[in-house]
Amino acid sequence: MYSYNHLFDFTRKVFLKMGCSTNDSEIIAEVFLAAELRGHASHGMIRIKDYYELWKAGRINVDPNVRIVHESPSTAVVDGDNAVGMISAKKSMEIAIEKAKSSGTGWVATCNSNHFGIAGYYSMMALRHDMIGICLTNANPLVAPTFSISRMMGTNPIAVAIPAMKQPPLVADFATTPIARGKLAVAEKKGEKVAFGFVQDKEGKPSDDPTILKSGGSMLTLGGDRLHGSHKGYCLSALVDIFSAILSGSNFGPFVPPSVAYLPVLEKKVGKGTGHFFGAMRIDAFQPADEFKSKMDEWIETFRSAEPAVGQNRVLIPGDPERESEERILKDGISLVPAIEKDLQEIAEVLDVPLK
Amino acid sequence: MYSYNHLFDFTRKVFLKMGCSTNDSEIIAEVFLAAELRGHASHGMIRIKDYYELWKAGRINVDPNVRIVHESPSTAVVDGDNAVGMISAKKSMEIAIEKAKSSGTGWVATCNSNHFGIAGYYSMMALRHDMIGICLTNANPLVAPTFSISRMMGTNPIAVAIPAMKQPPLVADFATTPIARGKLAVAEKKGEKVAFGFVQDKEGKPSDDPTILKSGGSMLTLGGDRLHGSHKGYCLSALVDIFSAILSGSNFGPFVPPSVAYLPVLEKKVGKGTGHFFGAMRIDAFQPADEFKSKMDEWIETFRSAEPAVGQNRVLIPGDPERESEERILKDGISLVPAIEKDLQEIAEVLDVPLK
Repeated sequence: MYSYNHLFDFTRKVFLKMGCSTNDSEIIAEVFLAAELRGHASHGMIRIKDYYELWKAGRINVDPNVRIVHESPSTAVVDGDNAVGMISAKKSMEIAIEKAKSSGTGWVATCNSNHFGIAGYYSMMALRHDMIGICLTNANPLVAPTFSISRMMGTNPIAVAIPAMKQPPLVADFATTPIARGKLAVAEKKGEKVAFGFVQDKEGKPSDDPTILKSGGSMLTLGGDRLHGSHKGYCLSALVDIFSAILSGSNFGPFVPPSVAYLPVLEKKVGKGTGHFFGAMRIDAFQPADEFKSKMDEWIETFRSAEPAVGQNRVLIPGDPERESEERILKDGISLVPAIEKDLQEIAEVLDVPLK
Repeated sequence: MYSYNHLFDFTRKVFLKMGCSTNDSEIIAEVFLAAELRGHASHGMIRIKDYYELWKAGRINVDPNVRIVHESPSTAVVDGDNAVGMISAKKSMEIAIEKAKSSGTGWVATCNSNHFGIAGYYSMMALRHDMIGICLTNANPLVAPTFSISRMMGTNPIAVAIPAMKQPPLVADFATTPIARGKLAVAEKKGEKVAFGFVQDKEGKPSDDPTILKSGGSMLTLGGDRLHGSHKGYCLSALVDIFSAILSGSNFGPFVPPSVAYLPVLEKKVGKGTGHFFGAMRIDAFQPADEFKSKMDEWIETFRSAEPAVGQNRVLIPGDPERESEERILKDGISLVPAIEKDLQEIAEVLDVPLK
């Protein structure tokens, strides 16, 4: 078990050694650790290796000039200058919040970025300003549209954070696929099958094989099949891609660059890097802030008191599991699976940043 | 078979006779007929009876003062004054578009409204201004959150319309449940079962009975069950409810008023009427309009050329089925099922507006 502070410091120092500024290294460490705390380890320490390899391959810019390249009173386009994703994303969300202060809402599309950890982190930045925060991103293609077998989209997540008064904020942060990519990897490592409805084989037939992506298979959109609404999941994933890529000028759909160095740079480019989209909405641009937040308390209390199904003991509010994970992990510490620990140990030795 | 013009004229005259202005009656007819053309008959002529009954019961305002009650440079809250939903919705979307002209984006939350037909209609209003259009609405509660058996949410749709250049626009317009409520009604009338994954019984057990809502059952969110991501559908539906209701000051979740007169007015009110949310985003607030629209052509052509699964012959773009329906129905005419024709015939006689 590692303490939060220990892994924060390790991560910070790794990125410092890679050439990131003091400030940037802290931001990167904070977002990686936020993923661990919120129970999304698939977006946490496991990804440091990927960034390390991208850096070794010269595929990431550790001294970026993240800047606005176009704007209107309520919008901006940000060029991330091929930064570590957290750096371009945090700056972009700050710009959205500043825009919202003067115009009521702020909307920023970001191109030329990279994998930014968990979308929820950026949406939650709005909360302390009494704003609703929104964050979308595209990702490298693994997912087939309805009726197709081509991998055209990423697991393209949507995150929205909404402040309340006495209740904790509502934080929805979810991929537009039934499950995260990481869960397939876990099942594969355990030698287990997965449920039907997550993946299909290379012909488009239902599959329960978590390794099917290696033999031409693809992930399915939320809904699973057409009968159960996969076309709606496809719509969602497509919208996330278009907002993140076409509004920003980044690569879209099948052209989104890989976030790992063991996959080659794609030959065809249709834009710059990976794309994100951020929104900040001042709640008092709609309702007096206290009134809105009290109403959110009422909404949350109403939904929390919905009757559980037989065999269930409670109804959750979006963000409950992550918040409870945060409390538990801050107390108990963060455990790293041996394979990740081994990867980090290698980096620790090369960069002379002790892990233990 | 009826022609578009014939049913448009009939609908217009019905609302004129109910006391709506000439202009309002035309708007209402246009939206009802847009639903018929786009193949969503569940939101078309079938709903005229509901409005007629609400009007007879004095539950709708045919001479409304739809007005802005709060605003910022990029936002407004609109009070629909208990208007026919189309009237408050169209005005609200017009305000969003005006806001976008000056601020880059415009966002309007509307309270005190009623059922507005298809969400797609309002999102598409943005297209001719080279804007992205967004429309959300809450609806009367039929849907249970994950792990619950309480009907807490409507089928809360999301509509987004995005302009392209040579390609037709991308128009996503979908309920946040696997299927529309109307499909349960159709199966019930035919005496058929439905697939599992759409509804559950009063204990929360999976059901294939389309009549289960009458015996304490509820509809499920997109995803169906927790394993297949129903919590993501719950997040979506919750977000639509909060944007539509808490930002606008309308009723939320289980308190959204019924859109039919045979259900009583709810005793508990937590806001005013039904709520909607509208967005308009000038595309040149992000990218030069022509560049964006050409990129959308490229996006659409890329996705249209994805490889179909075995047994499928093409991959669709959101909005394709509705556009093809429109072309077909404009040519062939609109058929009304006998039960709807009978309802309309009754109204025709009472209001002295001939249907045939």
